[in-house]
Amino acid sequence: MRASEPGVGDCAGHVGVDVGGTKLVAGRIRSDGTVEDLVVRATPAPAAGAAALEDAVVDAVTEVCGGLVPETVGLAAAAFVDRDRQRAMFAPHLAWRGEPVAARLAERLAAPVLLENDATCAAWAEHRLGAAAGTASSITVTVGTGIGGGIVVDGTLLRGAGGMAGEFGHVRLDPTGPPCPCGGRGCWERYCSGPALVAAAQRHRDPGAGPVHGTEVTAAAQAGRTWALAAFEEVGAALGRGLAGLVNVLDPQVVVVGGGVGSVGELLLGPARTVLADEVVGAGHRELPLVLTARLGPTAGMVGASLLARTAG
Amino acid sequence: MRASEPGVGDCAGHVGVDVGGTKLVAGRIRSDGTVEDLVVRATPAPAAGAAALEDAVVDAVTEVCGGLVPETVGLAAAAFVDRDRQRAMFAPHLAWRGEPVAARLAERLAAPVLLENDATCAAWAEHRLGAAAGTASSITVTVGTGIGGGIVVDGTLLRGAGGMAGEFGHVRLDPTGPPCPCGGRGCWERYCSGPALVAAAQRHRDPGAGPVHGTEVTAAAQAGRTWALAAFEEVGAALGRGLAGLVNVLDPQVVVVGGGVGSVGELLLGPARTVLADEVVGAGHRELPLVLTARLGPTAGMVGASLLARTAG
Repeated sequence: MRASEPGVGDCAGHVGVDVGGTKLVAGRIRSDGTVEDLVVRATPAPAAGAAALEDAVVDAVTEVCGGLVPETVGLAAAAFVDRDRQRAMFAPHLAWRGEPVAARLAERLAAPVLLENDATCAAWAEHRLGAAAGTASSITVTVGTGIGGGIVVDGTLLRGAGGMAGEFGHVRLDPTGPPCPCGGRGCWERYCSGPALVAAAQRHRDPGAGPVHGTEVTAAAQAGRTWALAAFEEVGAALGRGLAGLVNVLDPQVVVVGGGVGSVGELLLGPARTVLADEVVGAGHRELPLVLTARLGPTAGMVGASLLARTAG
Repeated sequence: MRASEPGVGDCAGHVGVDVGGTKLVAGRIRSDGTVEDLVVRATPAPAAGAAALEDAVVDAVTEVCGGLVPETVGLAAAAFVDRDRQRAMFAPHLAWRGEPVAARLAERLAAPVLLENDATCAAWAEHRLGAAAGTASSITVTVGTGIGGGIVVDGTLLRGAGGMAGEFGHVRLDPTGPPCPCGGRGCWERYCSGPALVAAAQRHRDPGAGPVHGTEVTAAAQAGRTWALAAFEEVGAALGRGLAGLVNVLDPQVVVVGGGVGSVGELLLGPARTVLADEVVGAGHRELPLVLTARLGPTAGMVGASLLARTAG
């Protein structure tokens, strides 16, 4: 039943939005993390400008709410978000460049709006309602097109002095590694991401077989094909290498691995655990964190944004 | 005036102890971080056993207290310390291997005893009374024989699920780098430490000049000698490389650099800031943390341990 139908009330409840590089997704978020009335749109291209992106968010939220006013709006965006959760300071695939997005949207939607980095939101959702629920400290690593992340310490989201904590993807694993669009070399996500998985599969497969797609690699690995398993082994090992550094620094109780690639699970986590145990400092004299697959799936970002929005202010 | 002299009172005040690989130092710690009645001993060799090390701590504290009972004892040790701050789980240069050190010493000294990793203690002292005083979040990196560290987030020391957060020294910067006694390769402290500084100086100096000592390198750099400046440039750049990863992960307000090598200051911090600004993600769209020299010097560990001890329990 839609919240806009007669008898449901005058408020459309809490709305979560995920503004990704290609898709913009909105829905009502229940306190248990269930998502209802999902609306999916294409994200306006950066060239269309900041206002077009704002309009798209307003349209999607309005459709979810069916004419009613949302109680809160939590906005997860693939962007660096400032400490005040108002502005998207920089986003390679979005038009926002420092505009006070949250305040503008709050005015147009007549509701409090909170903006936060998508991976940070996902980490909060996994900590509260997902794979790390019930623990005191966790880190979440989202492996997809790149690597995002978030850190929870003693039940509190670690945001950083400028709101930029948890940018794991460009931690450098090798100073002579492949160049990265960020301008660096050997960044973690060059070895552990969808593109890295496809590249590894291409290398391990019969050279005459032609290009391969990420979903094919997963299907082939699940069917036991050697080349695909080797690709997961390689990318999983790279996941473990990066995690060893994070565990040295943060010593979390649980590591949650999510994102499009990360959610594949044991194919990736098996090799990652082996390398983590091998490379973390003091192995044999400490307990290692559990390394678990994310539970909330692709809506983790919008769920986390909504959880943050309803406790903000 | 010694606390043991007549008229001072029945309690010897708060005592801090630093148990290092070669020296054991104890003293009374005032709330402003001043250290009084310093006692310095040689640390018993690991072969002498855990009891000999306990005896040495008791002797040093007893001498500091001049026969009176300490109010609290804070013990900073070059060791992995468990979450409960009771046991030194592992220490390459100390005899302790999981014994309940804090409880045993508390009984012998008739005072509450808190045990914590020395770099973690130094980070807390620098955050409360040193270079990061007045800030909300800071990390401290101690560069000496190796690299230690500690993290403070929103005024709270980040200890980790097992008490092992802040082990920065064995974050790996290069998978093909030089082997490390920890069993790994390319650990940060292989590039940034006293031994790394001496090795770099040796490489940059006239090959006929013979071996060089760390203090000579510092003196020569301060006198403007090219080979010594080149060594600091190289080790400072390595400091910056590691810091870039930590700033990506933690986004602290301030980075404090201490330890025997780190305290040299600008010779090291200049090149470190340049590399940090170049390698951190989102440079140009964010504020970078201040990178500052530690203020409390070699007593930072015992001061931090005492600050922790007086607020524990």
